[in-house]
Amino acid sequence: MQIDIQQCCMLLGTKEDILILCHRAPDGDTVGSAFGLYHALRSLGKRAAVLCSDPLPDKFSYIHHGVEFEAFTPQYIVAVDVATPELLGPALAQYAHCVDLCIDHHISNTLYAQHTLLDARAAAACELVYGIITALGVPVSQPMANALYTGLATDTGCFCYRNTTANTLRTAARLMEAGAESGDINSRLFEKKSRKRMELERESMRTLEYHFHSRCALIVITQEVLRRLEAKMEEVEGIASIPRTIEGVEAAVTLRENRDGTYKVSLRTEVGVDASAICSTLGGGGHVAAAGCTVAGPLEAAKAAVLEAVQRELEA
Amino acid sequence: MQIDIQQCCMLLGTKEDILILCHRAPDGDTVGSAFGLYHALRSLGKRAAVLCSDPLPDKFSYIHHGVEFEAFTPQYIVAVDVATPELLGPALAQYAHCVDLCIDHHISNTLYAQHTLLDARAAAACELVYGIITALGVPVSQPMANALYTGLATDTGCFCYRNTTANTLRTAARLMEAGAESGDINSRLFEKKSRKRMELERESMRTLEYHFHSRCALIVITQEVLRRLEAKMEEVEGIASIPRTIEGVEAAVTLRENRDGTYKVSLRTEVGVDASAICSTLGGGGHVAAAGCTVAGPLEAAKAAVLEAVQRELEA
Repeated sequence: MQIDIQQCCMLLGTKEDILILCHRAPDGDTVGSAFGLYHALRSLGKRAAVLCSDPLPDKFSYIHHGVEFEAFTPQYIVAVDVATPELLGPALAQYAHCVDLCIDHHISNTLYAQHTLLDARAAAACELVYGIITALGVPVSQPMANALYTGLATDTGCFCYRNTTANTLRTAARLMEAGAESGDINSRLFEKKSRKRMELERESMRTLEYHFHSRCALIVITQEVLRRLEAKMEEVEGIASIPRTIEGVEAAVTLRENRDGTYKVSLRTEVGVDASAICSTLGGGGHVAAAGCTVAGPLEAAKAAVLEAVQRELEA
Repeated sequence: MQIDIQQCCMLLGTKEDILILCHRAPDGDTVGSAFGLYHALRSLGKRAAVLCSDPLPDKFSYIHHGVEFEAFTPQYIVAVDVATPELLGPALAQYAHCVDLCIDHHISNTLYAQHTLLDARAAAACELVYGIITALGVPVSQPMANALYTGLATDTGCFCYRNTTANTLRTAARLMEAGAESGDINSRLFEKKSRKRMELERESMRTLEYHFHSRCALIVITQEVLRRLEAKMEEVEGIASIPRTIEGVEAAVTLRENRDGTYKVSLRTEVGVDASAICSTLGGGGHVAAAGCTVAGPLEAAKAAVLEAVQRELEA
């Protein structure tokens, strides 16, 4: 059942011992939402904890470092920025069928939770969590502000992507006033990249190819490269944006080889090309401008499957 | 004499036939400020025009394209985002000593104008012009909003740099609500690069090498590549930032081959490494964090000369 912010606050206000779940391969929005909400619940005197299938990335250590959770038996399960129960990942599979509340901004959310606060106009789940915290009447502390600012900034490419709205900017302004260390956070997340990440970009750019009169650009990240560079997941994130930055490219495809030889497809599209529709035909989903799916290998077969689906949409 | 926004509005309100001057080598902030103010003055029924020493860049054509100025004899001269009269450039030198009003956010402003509205906390002059327009009671139209949004976005690296304040973000939010086409503008200015530029990056990244325990990174752009890609200067600009974005790199070197076989060296350094000192030893100069020089070829000799100078400074 879908609920609004007031109902969401009513639910959270009456619950105790709350477990907050992130999605696997955690990004700034799921981590920021989780810790923003965590600190708010703590300041209401509730016990809470955050769990994620994968380790929380080092680059977000200013959000999670040193936060210690009390041991407790969860009475209420909240998932943040988690569109489907599968995205909880293997280590949290036990919760897949018992999420009480989901706070999300993905249009593809399957409404798997008992209650869902879903607003696809929000640039980030953190935008919704900010709304919840203020509606709960909790003053926004610096840890909350840093966490929530992170989700806004990472999901919008530092307020550059089209999902950025006036409300996103206004929320970021309020978070800065509440103490968000936006300068340090932006420098850390957007300005510098690790040498490994630079090598990964170099290898990815080597594979760049153009299709359909350059309306589609495609790059490949193989297991060989990932193994050779010993790349962490967080270094792979964002590589998908490379083909999207090319003028005239309407469908930007990144194929990342999984360990089992299948390929994770990340698709970013321009206005007029429905990424979600393309990925749906391949068993995936997502947003209109950003979607994903998994396709079988080998590489040439995976490419062909994706390019065929892209072509159908481009010609539609 | 320094004035505040109210005094600035009083002055502008009583003047007619207003000439607005940009600084030479015009950026998004001077162009955005000028056209934002221009449209506001027009909507007050005043004659106005914008002048710049250099042609206004194509990338800002959505701001200036199709705007035609009536002929008139200027009664009041306003400079926007122009810190010193020299920055007006040669074609506007005649106005250097008769600027009536300067609207600026550079701490280095020499107060050369009769009246100066100076606020160094503002991320962009456009932030001040927005304040003036609203204080004048002029409704912000879409052309004003697009112009002013551009200055905010370009001077803050799309709200990423440390000069971004809560007021910057809130102003941007209001401009979006007033119709600023932020998605298109950001895509045009920040996200998209030409296929040629992407190829140039690919070729440059191929040459990336590390020295002195990765404290120095170096890339090379050869005449062969420039000729093959038929790259324009504006496509080459910014390539020098590639090695600088790598974590731990204190000295980022770009060697660009000139037509005569010499190499133009562009050096960017982190705090503690004096780029100007390094380039001085090679007959060049610049700032502490960004400097340049020209060294003789062939490539291996040019590299050796630069690396030796870098090593001396790193070990100093």
